Amino acid sequence: MSDDVSALPEIPDGYITLDWRHGFAGQIGPLYRRLAAGRATMAFRVEERHTNGMLNAHGGMLMTFADMAWGHVVSVETSSYWVTVRLTCDFLAAAKLGDWIEAGGETLSVEDGLYIVRGRVWCGDNTLMSGLGIFKPLKRREPRRGEKAFRG
Amino acid sequence: MSDDVSALPEIPDGYITLDWRHGFAGQIGPLYRRLAAGRATMAFRVEERHTNGMLNAHGGMLMTFADMAWGHVVSVETSSYWVTVRLTCDFLAAAKLGDWIEAGGETLSVEDGLYIVRGRVWCGDNTLMSGLGIFKPLKRREPRRGEKAFRG
Repeated sequence: MSDDVSALPEIPDGYITLDWRHGFAGQIGPLYRRLAAGRATMAFRVEERHTNGMLNAHGGMLMTFADMAWGHVVSVETSSYWVTVRLTCDFLAAAKLGDWIEAGGETLSVEDGLYIVRGRVWCGDNTLMSGLGIFKPLKRREPRRGEKAFRG
Repeated sequence: MSDDVSALPEIPDGYITLDWRHGFAGQIGPLYRRLAAGRATMAFRVEERHTNGMLNAHGGMLMTFADMAWGHVVSVETSSYWVTVRLTCDFLAAAKLGDWIEAGGETLSVEDGLYIVRGRVWCGDNTLMSGLGIFKPLKRREPRRGEKAFRG
């Protein structure tokens, strides 16, 4: 055993790197995704460039991550592009430099074509953020592996 | 007259560049601030690195910007560091590549030491985002020019 942090696995089992290289998503990445038992979670490791003055993950980074991870439920369920209509984020605890942060959501209802998603962001057993997203699917695209419409 | 966009003033009158070089704020900047008639607004110009796949400002960037600009009300009123407790963002319209985006907020109430701030993000006459922030002031710091406690 060693206390050397660099000896820890960089990316936990099952996670793959998302190939988002452009625009804002490319700038804040890399983000990671895991599909297990039909549910998707996203993750990232807190680097210096994600932090605020207290060396915790910046609230803006956590909200951006929550938006992507909670809205991703719409991708998995509908294989559509989507936009965010409303996002509410409750900040419960801080994420520290080096932490491995995960997020996921579940659809509470679909009303007038709007997806109401309850989401969570966590680090290990610790919930960092809880919230609700309202997302609007746009046009359909080719289903990807792990999405409900995908036939592999 | 010319349609050459590069001929437009890069930074509207009264705005100064915020010197935030570290962490997440440094990565998404530069941001700008203007103090007029005792009210502060923040601004940024949408660059490629702020965009989503549709070349509009990414929702995460707009929320990050809203968080900073609406919470800035607490800085001006209390000369304190602060954290975000809850942020609710309603997305009303898109910001396009090259747009000059501004934001500001006003305190609706102060309850149990929490600041309830109503905020807006706009581009010209067009409101892009409306929302509510709940912010908690932390320890006081030296007042800066333009803040209520500042004696110049």
